[in-house]
Amino acid sequence: MLQERLNWRYATKKMDPSKKLPQDKLDSIVEAARLAPTSSGLQPFEVIVVKNPEIRARLRDAAFDQAQLTDAGAVLVFAAWDNYTEARIDAVLANTAAERGGLTDMLKGYFGRLKDSYLPRDAEVNHQHAARQAYIALGLALTAAAFEEVDSTPMEGFDPAKFDEILGLADRGLRSVAVMAVGYRADEGDWLLGQKKVRRPLAEFATVVE
Amino acid sequence: MLQERLNWRYATKKMDPSKKLPQDKLDSIVEAARLAPTSSGLQPFEVIVVKNPEIRARLRDAAFDQAQLTDAGAVLVFAAWDNYTEARIDAVLANTAAERGGLTDMLKGYFGRLKDSYLPRDAEVNHQHAARQAYIALGLALTAAAFEEVDSTPMEGFDPAKFDEILGLADRGLRSVAVMAVGYRADEGDWLLGQKKVRRPLAEFATVVE
Repeated sequence: MLQERLNWRYATKKMDPSKKLPQDKLDSIVEAARLAPTSSGLQPFEVIVVKNPEIRARLRDAAFDQAQLTDAGAVLVFAAWDNYTEARIDAVLANTAAERGGLTDMLKGYFGRLKDSYLPRDAEVNHQHAARQAYIALGLALTAAAFEEVDSTPMEGFDPAKFDEILGLADRGLRSVAVMAVGYRADEGDWLLGQKKVRRPLAEFATVVE
Repeated sequence: MLQERLNWRYATKKMDPSKKLPQDKLDSIVEAARLAPTSSGLQPFEVIVVKNPEIRARLRDAAFDQAQLTDAGAVLVFAAWDNYTEARIDAVLANTAAERGGLTDMLKGYFGRLKDSYLPRDAEVNHQHAARQAYIALGLALTAAAFEEVDSTPMEGFDPAKFDEILGLADRGLRSVAVMAVGYRADEGDWLLGQKKVRRPLAEFATVVE
């Protein structure tokens, strides 16, 4: 079932702007990203769901004029934390304690060790780590779209600094790391539609150590 | 359906080594990783499927003695390319051409531009980019395990240099970036089993720009 959906999906190159994306399908996609597992459960990223046409036109300008930015039903921008901070980790600790019946010594110890490890590190190292977690969620969001029979395009070809500026992300301590257009394929004009999915053969992808 | 599986899964802290992992389930998990979308379809990583008990004992020593390394049915090590090279990109181009009916000017142009962009970059920048792609596949493999009703543990708490040495990855131009233990939860002794899944509330996770 999962495999069938993964084989169905492809990086849609031309979306049909006249096809409406149902809100419940968009919600399911964002929810899959929210449920993604992340290192120590920190979820060190946010998802910006861009629907506004003017903003999307500006994002398109900052993404080599790729038409999916404006033709998709919505654009998800995965924005990773620029750094791990005490306040951010404490907020996760507080939420975890609230959801799991109180602040235990075990929780305090665990998050304390996390802060000892992360806070002295260079911001760039921490951001790179956060970005990786966002990519787990990107994978789950792409999978969720396939389950919703919604087309999607994972995109890295954009100017992160311009995206951050357009969306006001820097002020929020966020940096855009990946984009996902969500919508419906156009019936015509997508060169990739119908092309065979290409993956490296299993023997060159996986090694078994027995 | 997907959401139900994502809610079912959790980062298993104690596996039962007596429960056998069926090969077909393991195959499905690796296949989901292989089908993961990656930037320009490069799949810049490999998956090492470690079954050998002695090797796994050594990996456990290099991973803070975490018992899942030896108690799981198998351990998947996601190993990203240490760099993008001409040979690696040309191999993807050749495979794509073979699968899609020949070497077109469009393909040559696309991969040529990719090489112009990636090859002059610092190896570390390229490796970080490759590692992010591996995390998309990690997300899909974790999802696939949930669909197979197999427990799993995503792990970053290990010494990558030691893993690389134990598995001989450096000689193959690979660097371990994430580990996933795959197996079955123990009936007793897993402190996380039965704990409520904690995620940031949607309002703090997603912002809608309308």
